[in-house]
Amino acid sequence: MTLQEALNQYNDWKFRLSAYEMALSIINIDRLTVAPSDGAAYRDERTAFLSGELFSIQTDPQILPVLKQLKDSPAVDADLRREASLYFKETTKLTCIPKEEFVAFRKASDASYDAWMEAREKNDYAVFEPHLLGMIEWQKKLFGYRNDSRDVYDQMLDEYEPGTDRVFYDSFFTKLRERIVPLIQKVVQSEPIDTSFLKQSFPVELQKKWTETVLLPYLGFDRGWGYQNETEHPFTSWTCENDCRTTTRYEEQNLISSIFSTIHEVGHAWYEHNISSRYDGSILSSGVSSGMHESQSRLCENYLGRTLPFWKALYPSLQETFPEQLRSVSLEQFVRAVNASFPSAVRTEADELTYPLHIMIRYEIERGLFDGTLSAEHLDETWNRMYRELLGVEVKNAKEGILQDVHWSDGSFGYFPTYALGSAFAAQFMHKMRQEIAVDHFLERREYTSVMAWLRKNIHTYGARYDAPGIMKLAAGEEFDPGYYLDYLETKYSRLYYLESSV
Amino acid sequence: MTLQEALNQYNDWKFRLSAYEMALSIINIDRLTVAPSDGAAYRDERTAFLSGELFSIQTDPQILPVLKQLKDSPAVDADLRREASLYFKETTKLTCIPKEEFVAFRKASDASYDAWMEAREKNDYAVFEPHLLGMIEWQKKLFGYRNDSRDVYDQMLDEYEPGTDRVFYDSFFTKLRERIVPLIQKVVQSEPIDTSFLKQSFPVELQKKWTETVLLPYLGFDRGWGYQNETEHPFTSWTCENDCRTTTRYEEQNLISSIFSTIHEVGHAWYEHNISSRYDGSILSSGVSSGMHESQSRLCENYLGRTLPFWKALYPSLQETFPEQLRSVSLEQFVRAVNASFPSAVRTEADELTYPLHIMIRYEIERGLFDGTLSAEHLDETWNRMYRELLGVEVKNAKEGILQDVHWSDGSFGYFPTYALGSAFAAQFMHKMRQEIAVDHFLERREYTSVMAWLRKNIHTYGARYDAPGIMKLAAGEEFDPGYYLDYLETKYSRLYYLESSV
Repeated sequence: MTLQEALNQYNDWKFRLSAYEMALSIINIDRLTVAPSDGAAYRDERTAFLSGELFSIQTDPQILPVLKQLKDSPAVDADLRREASLYFKETTKLTCIPKEEFVAFRKASDASYDAWMEAREKNDYAVFEPHLLGMIEWQKKLFGYRNDSRDVYDQMLDEYEPGTDRVFYDSFFTKLRERIVPLIQKVVQSEPIDTSFLKQSFPVELQKKWTETVLLPYLGFDRGWGYQNETEHPFTSWTCENDCRTTTRYEEQNLISSIFSTIHEVGHAWYEHNISSRYDGSILSSGVSSGMHESQSRLCENYLGRTLPFWKALYPSLQETFPEQLRSVSLEQFVRAVNASFPSAVRTEADELTYPLHIMIRYEIERGLFDGTLSAEHLDETWNRMYRELLGVEVKNAKEGILQDVHWSDGSFGYFPTYALGSAFAAQFMHKMRQEIAVDHFLERREYTSVMAWLRKNIHTYGARYDAPGIMKLAAGEEFDPGYYLDYLETKYSRLYYLESSV
Repeated sequence: MTLQEALNQYNDWKFRLSAYEMALSIINIDRLTVAPSDGAAYRDERTAFLSGELFSIQTDPQILPVLKQLKDSPAVDADLRREASLYFKETTKLTCIPKEEFVAFRKASDASYDAWMEAREKNDYAVFEPHLLGMIEWQKKLFGYRNDSRDVYDQMLDEYEPGTDRVFYDSFFTKLRERIVPLIQKVVQSEPIDTSFLKQSFPVELQKKWTETVLLPYLGFDRGWGYQNETEHPFTSWTCENDCRTTTRYEEQNLISSIFSTIHEVGHAWYEHNISSRYDGSILSSGVSSGMHESQSRLCENYLGRTLPFWKALYPSLQETFPEQLRSVSLEQFVRAVNASFPSAVRTEADELTYPLHIMIRYEIERGLFDGTLSAEHLDETWNRMYRELLGVEVKNAKEGILQDVHWSDGSFGYFPTYALGSAFAAQFMHKMRQEIAVDHFLERREYTSVMAWLRKNIHTYGARYDAPGIMKLAAGEEFDPGYYLDYLETKYSRLYYLESSV
């Protein structure tokens, strides 16, 4: 095949792929936000068919040689070689598994999810236990088809965060443990920060109005390129540069839940929005890894959204919206409260300081399950013991313990560690950003988009053009170093709890 | 091909068709309600590709003989024969036009729409005039491919309302004119009804809250099978029995605009929702004609929604929502106001009594344009003259005159008459319904769904299983008779304006 023929075939294939991906993405957003519940069976049957159409395009037997030719051809530019090689990797993954195995796995994974739901309802880990074991066996089998000599869990870690493995994460989490555990102990022994005023009644309509008329405009999330809706579990989805959707959840008794979930999800949205439009419709037009994506949402949520300058700009209008509830709460009290740290049993409710320990527990369990040093049997007890030892928390029941997360139910092992990694990436980016631009000045002056412009120029614009270590080098000028993250946490929580002298 | 082979091929084809139709429907709803505006180009390009995929399935050369075999086979049941014959008709229509002609028409029609928009902005009919002429010529050409000896405008009337032609509508509109024109003259000479209190300031948030917590629940439109969103131009869309979407538009200075548009659109939604689920995914699972669909929305909006019993149930809560604005307005005053008649220049703002004359003007113009007795040149003047003669209204400008409707811009001639026909169908259905069930009793007692049950049993459940005249026979027990409609209007407006003695 001539290069021109290969290019034509490739461009046509890529466009068709992007059309089905867009359709399935919109159908999924619709399903999760507004679609009437009783129509699910009808829609799901047809959505499955369309997913099959997409799968047929992805695994078109004629495309692999085309991708191979392009990725290996010195005559095409580097962007395109990277693009073709990522597609080649994805397509190889999909085509190496026999279709009947794939279908059987989907069934097992659906059954596992159902069992997880049932176990939660019954608050009984034993219902889920055999399925968890099943998912591990399934993943071993599926990764076996890849003809990759590496350990399966290493492959799974690499799946979500290319370039990482157990050696990498062992080192990462050891460093975290050494410095975070003693810090938490000091915080726990300090005078607790008053957060009671955040748990009053805040009418959802008013929360929503403030979010839509004050917060989203401040964040620069406008109807030209984005739309926010509501779902039980907030998420971000996108189809192209100028089509990013986020969701949030309002809770009457919790003022800050929807606020920080909004800042977080809009952080994901900014990443996608800022990717160079020349990658639109291709595999490069997406965040490069789970950790990198999470670094951007957490940077916005924690490193910007929980600071005094951010709230200098926004707190007056929040106070005006809830005069009864916030009249006697000063700006400083409010900012302290949204940063307060309390060890707890539930990951999604954890503060910035204790959060990485929740992740560490999950990483150690996943690692042990795959290398055989841990059994799925009575894993709930192991879980509870680890929470007691690491966080000093007594887990009340399985639902608030080992059954709290959905990730393992469909076999997504190796995903959790990227959450902690994202926070650490973010700290290093922030360090660099603060050397280059007047972040606080921009936040106070409602110029949030000027901060986003730094992220765009140094991180977002690349999409998946470079891998995460490559982007770290480009943006921070050096290799990844978790020290920035630990310095940040120590400085922040020492100041917050007046621990300076003791550190 | 054996019958079984034909059936298999047919079912597979029908399913694929329904999957693409569902996807395009959801993408379109998303586009019209929430999709970020700047993503339009990316989405539209891919949506066009998916529409092309659907078109390829619809016009699959292998399907016509299959459809022919099924529609003509005495061995298959009558439902399936009807289904296959409707598909056969649709497919024949699509396949008879050369693809390049189809594409050229789409371009011309897009350009015509753009010209219409520009003409509206400039308030200058001359900008649109050549395009209107062009659309007529295009339709003559496209219908020419059908190998149908009938007049083109007759074919277009039949397109939207199977079985109708100019002879049918001439007779229909003559009857309307004879009795409605003198009635309007009497109303115009009567003491006007006070409607000023409907034009106060009604905060949109409160309107929305009342609609979502009171009106939609009263109408039985719940999240199990429906969802209402907001758009500039309200519409209803659906994918299956349990997935019906409506939209409305809230105006601060107009309390009843969104209320009656909601009742109207939910009327369309009930029709689709109530179609027997055994037709789901097939061409039978849709209202049978434009007139029949409009009859159901107008029945709900006017024949139920503008009655005293309906408002006995709902007015107290509306008054409570707007105490300042409605405190001194009695239930009876409110109901009179929502039925008041004032001749006006704009169709979508017209009341129940003057509405059919707006349609009559459009019908006569379309008829004249196609039979050559009217020219598109200076048609705005003809338009204005007809409004003066028939409604006694002076049209202020082209935007509020001939440019007010979108329909002609893309060549949808023959659609307007179904609006008036729908109102007339509805009157006949109501007459029968009132003989069989205690409508007012149900409305007062918040049992709206009991009224919908009558419609389901007698009309909705059939979907497109029978044609409109067939459904009229089944539901009303006799042929269509516009007399019911005229009797209804005379009785209603005589009472409303205290004209009894003079009628």
